[in-house]
Amino acid sequence: MNNQFDLIIKNARCATAADIFSADIGIKDGTIKALGKDLGSCDDEIDAKGAWVTPGGIDGHCHFAEPSKNGVKMADDFTSGSRSAACGGTTTVIPFAVQQRGQTLKDAVADYHRKANKQSYIDYAFHIIITDVNEQVLQELPDLINEGYTSFKIYMTYDDMKLSDSDIIKTLAVAREHGALIMVHAESSDCITWLTERLLSAGHTAPKYHAESRPMLVEREATHRAITFAELVDVPILIVHVSGREAIEQIRWAQNKGLKIYAETCPQYLFLSTDDLGGEDDYEATKCICSPPPRDPDNQRIVWEGLQSDNFSIFSSDHAPFSYADPNGKQAEGKKPSFNKVANGIPGVETRLPLLFSHGVMSNKLNIEQFVQITSTNVAKMYGLYPQKGSIAIGADADLVIWDDQNSQKITNDKLHHAVDYTPYEGINVDAWPAITINRGKIIWQDNQFHGTVGNGHFLPCQKPTPARPKVHSSPFKREAE
Amino acid sequence: MNNQFDLIIKNARCATAADIFSADIGIKDGTIKALGKDLGSCDDEIDAKGAWVTPGGIDGHCHFAEPSKNGVKMADDFTSGSRSAACGGTTTVIPFAVQQRGQTLKDAVADYHRKANKQSYIDYAFHIIITDVNEQVLQELPDLINEGYTSFKIYMTYDDMKLSDSDIIKTLAVAREHGALIMVHAESSDCITWLTERLLSAGHTAPKYHAESRPMLVEREATHRAITFAELVDVPILIVHVSGREAIEQIRWAQNKGLKIYAETCPQYLFLSTDDLGGEDDYEATKCICSPPPRDPDNQRIVWEGLQSDNFSIFSSDHAPFSYADPNGKQAEGKKPSFNKVANGIPGVETRLPLLFSHGVMSNKLNIEQFVQITSTNVAKMYGLYPQKGSIAIGADADLVIWDDQNSQKITNDKLHHAVDYTPYEGINVDAWPAITINRGKIIWQDNQFHGTVGNGHFLPCQKPTPARPKVHSSPFKREAE
Amino acid sequence: MNNQFDLIIKNARCATAADIFSADIGIKDGTIKALGKDLGSCDDEIDAKGAWVTPGGIDGHCHFAEPSKNGVKMADDFTSGSRSAACGGTTTVIPFAVQQRGQTLKDAVADYHRKANKQSYIDYAFHIIITDVNEQVLQELPDLINEGYTSFKIYMTYDDMKLSDSDIIKTLAVAREHGALIMVHAESSDCITWLTERLLSAGHTAPKYHAESRPMLVEREATHRAITFAELVDVPILIVHVSGREAIEQIRWAQNKGLKIYAETCPQYLFLSTDDLGGEDDYEATKCICSPPPRDPDNQRIVWEGLQSDNFSIFSSDHAPFSYADPNGKQAEGKKPSFNKVANGIPGVETRLPLLFSHGVMSNKLNIEQFVQITSTNVAKMYGLYPQKGSIAIGADADLVIWDDQNSQKITNDKLHHAVDYTPYEGINVDAWPAITINRGKIIWQDNQFHGTVGNGHFLPCQKPTPARPKVHSSPFKREAE
Amino acid sequence: MNNQFDLIIKNARCATAADIFSADIGIKDGTIKALGKDLGSCDDEIDAKGAWVTPGGIDGHCHFAEPSKNGVKMADDFTSGSRSAACGGTTTVIPFAVQQRGQTLKDAVADYHRKANKQSYIDYAFHIIITDVNEQVLQELPDLINEGYTSFKIYMTYDDMKLSDSDIIKTLAVAREHGALIMVHAESSDCITWLTERLLSAGHTAPKYHAESRPMLVEREATHRAITFAELVDVPILIVHVSGREAIEQIRWAQNKGLKIYAETCPQYLFLSTDDLGGEDDYEATKCICSPPPRDPDNQRIVWEGLQSDNFSIFSSDHAPFSYADPNGKQAEGKKPSFNKVANGIPGVETRLPLLFSHGVMSNKLNIEQFVQITSTNVAKMYGLYPQKGSIAIGADADLVIWDDQNSQKITNDKLHHAVDYTPYEGINVDAWPAITINRGKIIWQDNQFHGTVGNGHFLPCQKPTPARPKVHSSPFKREAE
Repeated sequence: MNNQFDLIIKNARCATAADIFSADIGIKDGTIKALGKDLGSCDDEIDAKGAWVTPGGIDGHCHFAEPSKNGVKMADDFTSGSRSAACGGTTTVIPFAVQQRGQTLKDAVADYHRKANKQSYIDYAFHIIITDVNEQVLQELPDLINEGYTSFKIYMTYDDMKLSDSDIIKTLAVAREHGALIMVHAESSDCITWLTERLLSAGHTAPKYHAESRPMLVEREATHRAITFAELVDVPILIVHVSGREAIEQIRWAQNKGLKIYAETCPQYLFLSTDDLGGEDDYEATKCICSPPPRDPDNQRIVWEGLQSDNFSIFSSDHAPFSYADPNGKQAEGKKPSFNKVANGIPGVETRLPLLFSHGVMSNKLNIEQFVQITSTNVAKMYGLYPQKGSIAIGADADLVIWDDQNSQKITNDKLHHAVDYTPYEGINVDAWPAITINRGKIIWQDNQFHGTVGNGHFLPCQKPTPARPKVHSSPFKREAE
Repeated sequence: MNNQFDLIIKNARCATAADIFSADIGIKDGTIKALGKDLGSCDDEIDAKGAWVTPGGIDGHCHFAEPSKNGVKMADDFTSGSRSAACGGTTTVIPFAVQQRGQTLKDAVADYHRKANKQSYIDYAFHIIITDVNEQVLQELPDLINEGYTSFKIYMTYDDMKLSDSDIIKTLAVAREHGALIMVHAESSDCITWLTERLLSAGHTAPKYHAESRPMLVEREATHRAITFAELVDVPILIVHVSGREAIEQIRWAQNKGLKIYAETCPQYLFLSTDDLGGEDDYEATKCICSPPPRDPDNQRIVWEGLQSDNFSIFSSDHAPFSYADPNGKQAEGKKPSFNKVANGIPGVETRLPLLFSHGVMSNKLNIEQFVQITSTNVAKMYGLYPQKGSIAIGADADLVIWDDQNSQKITNDKLHHAVDYTPYEGINVDAWPAITINRGKIIWQDNQFHGTVGNGHFLPCQKPTPARPKVHSSPFKREAE
Repeated sequence: MNNQFDLIIKNARCATAADIFSADIGIKDGTIKALGKDLGSCDDEIDAKGAWVTPGGIDGHCHFAEPSKNGVKMADDFTSGSRSAACGGTTTVIPFAVQQRGQTLKDAVADYHRKANKQSYIDYAFHIIITDVNEQVLQELPDLINEGYTSFKIYMTYDDMKLSDSDIIKTLAVAREHGALIMVHAESSDCITWLTERLLSAGHTAPKYHAESRPMLVEREATHRAITFAELVDVPILIVHVSGREAIEQIRWAQNKGLKIYAETCPQYLFLSTDDLGGEDDYEATKCICSPPPRDPDNQRIVWEGLQSDNFSIFSSDHAPFSYADPNGKQAEGKKPSFNKVANGIPGVETRLPLLFSHGVMSNKLNIEQFVQITSTNVAKMYGLYPQKGSIAIGADADLVIWDDQNSQKITNDKLHHAVDYTPYEGINVDAWPAITINRGKIIWQDNQFHGTVGNGHFLPCQKPTPARPKVHSSPFKREAE
Repeated sequence: MNNQFDLIIKNARCATAADIFSADIGIKDGTIKALGKDLGSCDDEIDAKGAWVTPGGIDGHCHFAEPSKNGVKMADDFTSGSRSAACGGTTTVIPFAVQQRGQTLKDAVADYHRKANKQSYIDYAFHIIITDVNEQVLQELPDLINEGYTSFKIYMTYDDMKLSDSDIIKTLAVAREHGALIMVHAESSDCITWLTERLLSAGHTAPKYHAESRPMLVEREATHRAITFAELVDVPILIVHVSGREAIEQIRWAQNKGLKIYAETCPQYLFLSTDDLGGEDDYEATKCICSPPPRDPDNQRIVWEGLQSDNFSIFSSDHAPFSYADPNGKQAEGKKPSFNKVANGIPGVETRLPLLFSHGVMSNKLNIEQFVQITSTNVAKMYGLYPQKGSIAIGADADLVIWDDQNSQKITNDKLHHAVDYTPYEGINVDAWPAITINRGKIIWQDNQFHGTVGNGHFLPCQKPTPARPKVHSSPFKREAE
C-alpha cells in the first residue's frame, strides 16, 4: 500500500488515438501519473478487468443556454447540458459564447462566464460566435485569443447570424495573424431563402420541406466559398457539421491541393436521414429538423467513408436543445408550424459516444484508435486543450471512460439526462455505454448512475490550436558554438 | 533504489503516433514496464534531459543478401545491413525472402533464415517476394501466413520478377482469403521495354535516360491496374515506393472511393531528383539509379504534401545496396554502362530517419506524431508486428531512439555503416541524429558509436496485418442471458 | 425543264452537323451539285414537303461474314447486312476485315474483298482487325494505309483476338508514323477470365452472369491502359463501344488533359440494360449478350449525357449477327448454354438510326445537328471518307435520308431485313423511320419497300483519318516575295 | 447571263461549323440563294480562286458608347466601333444596353437605340446589362424578351454593377421562365476588394498589381457560385471571358454533371499574359488592364486546349475602348494612376478574327470548322440570330469573309479603324486578314479599304437562344388517325 496514487485503474485495455495497450493507470491529484504493468495498490482502486478504457470525450460543438430567439429558450443550461454530456462519457464540453449584434465580444464572453460559473459538472471551454464584425470587434480578438478564447465560429446563413463575405475575409485575416481557428457553418444563405419562399408559396410547410430548402448544393457552394476565402488569406479553417458527398468532395479537393481545410461531422449525418423528416403531414418530424438537414442513405455511407478515410478531424454532437412541447420550440404538439419557423437543432450531447462506439467501433467500421482520435484527441488539439485533455498519457488530466460493450439497449429519452423532452435517436439500438466515467480523477458516472457535483467543472482557457504543423520544442542538445 | 526496472530513461519527451508527453520510461526484461512522472531510480539510468524519444524505427522495405543477379552481389548482408540500420535509429528491419523462379516459397524462406540466423544486430521479420505463381505456390501460402510470413511483394515489371495480370489476381485472391497483405511494385513493364528500346536504339545510354525510360505515366498506369485488381478481389494492397503526382492521384481517387489502398514512399522521392541522374555524359549518376526514378521538384513537393495529408501509410528506405566499384554493380568507374544494365537500387537504411526528422519534423513539414506513425507505428501495424513493436507503450519492446536535434552535419559515406561504397545522399545536411538507440532495452548506439552485438536480433513472426478495421477484443462484460 | 440535274429533292429541311436550312437539293451523276431556294425542275423530282433530310447514315462498326468461330456462322453476309443497313437509313458501312492468326493482313483484306465484291447494296469500306502482330505484319501496314485501309481495330480481350500490351504499343507506334487510326476494344482480359471461372465454378451459367463477369471496372481499367499507351506513343485512338460511367470518366479525364482520345457508343448502352440479361433461369436472354454488356439505368443516363456533351464522336451499331436458332450461335432454344459459350454480339445495323432519331432528336435529348454529327459526319471524318461522305454539301455523294417522323411503330423482327432471327430491340417503340433513302442519287428505300440493287455498292478506299487538326490547304494568295 | 443572282462568289472554299466544300455562292436580295458547282454568271461576280470563305464574324461581347463613368468616355461609339468590327471581318455586333441604376430596362434599351440608330455600318443586336434588380425590372423582362432582347448580362463584381446573390437567383428564375440567356461576369467581389486594399496600403499601385488583385481563385469561386445558382434554378448560363485553368475546371466539372453551363473566352487570354502588365514601374502597361486579367503561359495553353476540346462555345473580343491619352481613361501618359483607378478594358473588335485565324487555324491548333463555330455559328445560335446569321447556308444573310491567308503583317494601331489610340496587340504578327468582307450581299471591305455605308447596319431582334436542345419542327407526315 502506498500513497503514490489517489486511484489506480487496474487491468485497463487502453486506447489512444494511435495505440492499444494493457496497463494499470495511476492517478494522483486528478492527473495521470503513471501507466504500468503493475502499479501496486492504493486506497482507491477500480478493476477494469480488461475492458476498453478511452480518454473522456470532448464535445467540440454544443449549444447551452444561448439567448432566447423568437421566444424559444434553449432547454439545456450549463447544469443540465454538462450533466447529460457526463452521462454519455463526455468529460469536457466546448459550448459557444454568442455575440449579440451590437455587443462586444468581451461582454459576450462575460455573459457566458456568468451562465457557466459554478454551474458545470464537467470541464468546459468556450468558442465565440461572431455575428457582428466591425473595427472594434476585430481589435478585441487578439486580447481574447491571449486570454484563452482561440476558436471562433461564423455563419454563412441565418439572417441574424450570418457574416458578409467581406466580414468573413477580415475575420480570417485576424485569425491568421493571431493564430486562432475559425469554424464555419457553410450553407448558402440566398439559395436557402429563395427555395424557402418558393416552397412556402406553394403551400409546402411540413418538416420534410426543410430538407428541400437546403439541398446538398447549398452546402457545397458555401463550402467552396469558405475554402476559397481560407486559400485567399492562407489560414486553416474548420468546416463544421458536414452532411454528405458534395461538401466532402470540395473538402477532399482542397485537402489534396495542400490547403489546411479541416472538417467535422455529427451523429445526425450517420444515424438520421430524410426519412426522419417524415411525410407530407408528419409534423412530429420537427424533432429532427437541424441544419444542414439529414440526407439520404447514400450520403450516410459517404460520411462513414469520410470517417474511415480520416477526412473528418472531429466528430461532435452539435447539441442544440429545444423542447418539442415548447410552443416556441419544436412546438408541434397539435400544431403545424412551417418548417422555417421551427427551432432549428437537435439534442445529442449524451448519445454521441455510445452511438459511434457501437455502430463504428463494434461494427468494425472504425478502429478504436480512430474513435479516440475524432471524439477526443483531435478535438483537444484543434482547440488548444492538448495535452491537458485528449489522451491517456502521463501528465494529462485523468478524464477516462471505462466502456461496457455488452450493454445493448434501445435509446429512449427517459434514460437521458438532458432537459429536452425528446431525442431524435429514440429507438436506435446501442451495444455499449460507459460503465464508469472519470473527470480529473473523480467518478462522475458509475452503474448507470450520475455521481457528478455541480460546479466541479473547471473553465479551461485554450491555447492556440495546432491544426497544422507544431513548432519543435527547444532542445537539450545545445551546442556551444550556437 | 529498486529492482523493478533494469533501466530507466528519465525526463523523456516521448512522442507516439498520436501523443506527446514527458515521462520516465521504466524498462524491464527488454520491454516497457512503466511510464510515469517519477519512476524512482534503478542501477541503470539515462537522463534524456527533455530530448525527444521516439519508438525505434522499423524499416519495412530493405533488401539484404539477395541472390546474385547478372553477376552483381548485394553489398549488404544481414550483418552489415542491420548494423547500418541500427546506427540510423532503426531497431527492426523487414527485408525480403526472394523466391527464385522454380523454387518453393518455403525453400526461399529457409534460405533467408540461413542467411539471417545469428547474423543480425537488430530484430527482423521477412516479407516474401513471389516471382513464380503456380498451384503449388498458392497452396503454400496459407501455411506460411500461419507461420508468420504475412506480407508478400509482387512486381509488375522486371522480366525475371514480374507476374502476369492473371497471377497477380490469383495471388490477391489467396491473400484475401487468408488475411495477408500484398505489396505491389507498380510500373508498367511493356511501356518501359518499348521506351528503353527506343532510347538505346537512339544511342541514349546515360543514367539520365533511366528516368526517361520510366516516366510518371508508367507508374500511373500500373497503379491504376493494381488498384483495379484489388477492387476486383476486394482486398487491401500496399503500393510501394510511390514517386509523384500521377500515382498519388490514382491512390487518392481509390481511397476516396472507399477502397483499401495503402501507399509507401521513400527518401529518394523527397531528397533526390532527376538532376541527380546527371547530364548527357555523367555516368557517376548511376549511383542514383533506382526504380521508380527520382522525379522533378514539383513531384517532390507533391510527395511531401502526400505525407502531410496522410496519403502515405509508410515511409521506408527501399535500401538496395550495390557498390559503385563493383564491376557488375553500379560499375561506372571509368566505364559507361547503359542505364538498363546498371544494378538498380540505392542504399538508404541508415539515413532514412535522420533525413525525415531533420527535413520533416524540424522543418515543420510534418509533426513528430506523423513521423512516428509512418516510420514505426504504421509499419508495425501493417505488417503484423504491433503492439510488440511500433510504440512507446506499456508492454511493447523497449525499442527507443533518443534524438539529438542539435547534431547538424553533412551526410558523408565515411560516417555510414553499410558495406556500400557510396551514399546517394552525400553532402545533404541533417540537423538531427540519434543520440542513443535502444533495442529490447539494450543500448546499441551511443555517442556516435555502435554498441550492437551480432546475433542479438530476434526473428519476429508476423501476425496478420491490420490495415483495415480490427476486430474488437472479447469483453469482460459478458451478460448471463447471452 | 432542264437537264442540269438528274434528280431534285424539293422543299427539304436539311440538317448537317452544324446547320439547319430549307432548300432544294439538285443531284447530278450521284453527287450533290446544287442547293438552292428554287432550283427549277427536272425529270425526276421528290417533294420532301419540309420533312427533315439528313446525310445518309454511316455505320462505322459492324461485322459481316466474319469467319466461323466455334462452329457459329455469322448470320449476315455483305448482301443481307448491307440490305438491312439500307433499310434503316444507312448508306455506307465499314465492316471489318479480320486477320486470322498466322495470316497476312493483305490476305485478310483480299478475303474480304472476295466476300464483298458485287455483294453489297450500299457503299462500303474496311477496317482491319489485327490479331497477330509481328514484324511482317507491322511492315504491311504502311502499304495498306496508302491503299485505303486506314483504321485498325485491336482487342484487349478474347483469347483468339487480344494483343499483348507490347504488341498494342508497337501497333500504335506504326499508326502514329503513318497516320492511321487505332480502334480499341477495351476490356481487361485477365479480370474477365478470373471472374468467369469463379462464376462457373459456383454454377452460375445464366446469361445474367455474362454482365457479372465483365463489370464496369473491367472496362475502366482497360480504358485507362489504352489511354496510357496512346499518351506514351502520342497518337490518337478511338475507344469503341463505351458502356458507362467509369469508362467515360477515364475518357473525359484524358480529353481534359489534352490527349486525343475519341470514343464511340452504341444503341445497346442506351436501350438495353442488365434487366434484358434476364433472371436466374432466363436463357432467352442470350439474345442480349454482347460485350461490354448492357449496364444499369444510371449508366444509360450517363451515356446519354456523354452524347449531349459531345464526349462521344461516333454512334455505331456494333452489329454482330448470330442467330438464336443456330445451335452454335445464341443456341438457347431448349438448351442452357453457359454465358461464356454463347456467341457474343447482337444485331442492330438497321435499328440504329430510327432509335436515335426517335429517342434522341424527337425526345429533345439531342439536337438534330448532333444526330448528324455522330451518325454520319464524324464517322466520315474519323475514317477518311469525308467530304465524299458525311454531309449535305456541294460535291458530296448524294446519300440522303428523308425522315418520316410520324411513323410510330414498335420494332419487331419481322419488319427487319437482316438474316438474324431476332432483334434485341423487339417491342421498343420508335416514332420515326426513313421515308426515302438515297445512295449516290438512287432511291434504295421508299414507302417501306427496299429498292436496292445488289452490287451497286462501291468499295471506298479511305483517306487518312482527320480526328485531330487538319492541315490548311494551299492558298491562292501566293505572294511573290515568298 | 441571268438575273437570278445579284452577286456570285465563284470558286469559294467554304467552311461552315461542320463542313468544308467548294462551291459558287449565289446571292440575291442580300441572302444566300444558292450554292452549287456552277451557278452560271451574273452582273456582279467575285472569283475567290479557292480561298477560304467563312460566315461573317459575330462579336457577341463588345462595348460601344456606354455612359461616362468616373469621367471617362468610351472611345468608340456605334459608328467607329462598327467600322472597326467590319474591317476585321465581323458583320454583326452585339453590344450592351446598360441599365443605369434607377433606370428601367426599357429606358436603357431606348437610350441605346438612339445611340445606334442610323449609326452602324453593320448589323447589330443588343444584350442588356442589368445592374438594378427590383420587382419592376423583373416584370419588364418578359416583354423585352418578346421584343427581341433575349440575353442579359450580370456582374458579380464592380460596386456600381454587381448584383447580390439573391438578385442573381431571381434574375435566373425569370430567365428560366421566359427562355432568356444570362451572361455572367464571374469574379468574387469581396475577395478583390480585400486584396486591392492590402496592395494599395502596401504602396503597390502599378498595373501589374491589377493581376495580383484578381488571382485565379477569385474567378474560380465566382464561377462555382454562378454554376450553383444555375443548377439551383435549372437554367442555362454563359460564363463570359474565362481566363484560365481553375475556372475551366469548374466549367468542365459542371458540364460533366450534365449542367447546361456554357463558356466564352477572348483573345486577351490567348495573346496577352501577366508579362504585358509590366514591371514595378511600367505604367504604360495600363493598356493591358482588363478583367479578368491576362494570366501566365500555362493558363494560355489551358485556354487553347479548352478551345480545342470545345469547352468554349463562343470566342468574343470583350472590346472595351478607352484611350491611353484620355486623362480619365488609361490616363498613364506621364502619370502613375493606381491600378484600381484605371479604366478597365481593352479594345479588340477588329483583331479578334485575324488573330484566331492566324494562330488557331493556320497554326493547326483549331480546325477551320471550329473557328467558324466559335466566332459565328454558335454566337448566332446562343443569342437567337440563327439561321439568319452564322452560316453559309441557303436562306441565310449573305455575310461572308473571303480570307487572304498570305497576308503576313504585324498588327499596329495605325492600321486599325477604331477610335482608340492604341491596341494591346501592337506588334503581334498575323498571317491572314480578310481580303473581302460582305454584309447582306454588299462589299464593306476590299483591298484593305473600308467600303461601308453608315446606317446600313440593321437592328436585329433576337429570337430565344437555343443553347440546349431545340424543339423539332412540325412534320409533313401527319397521320390521319392522329
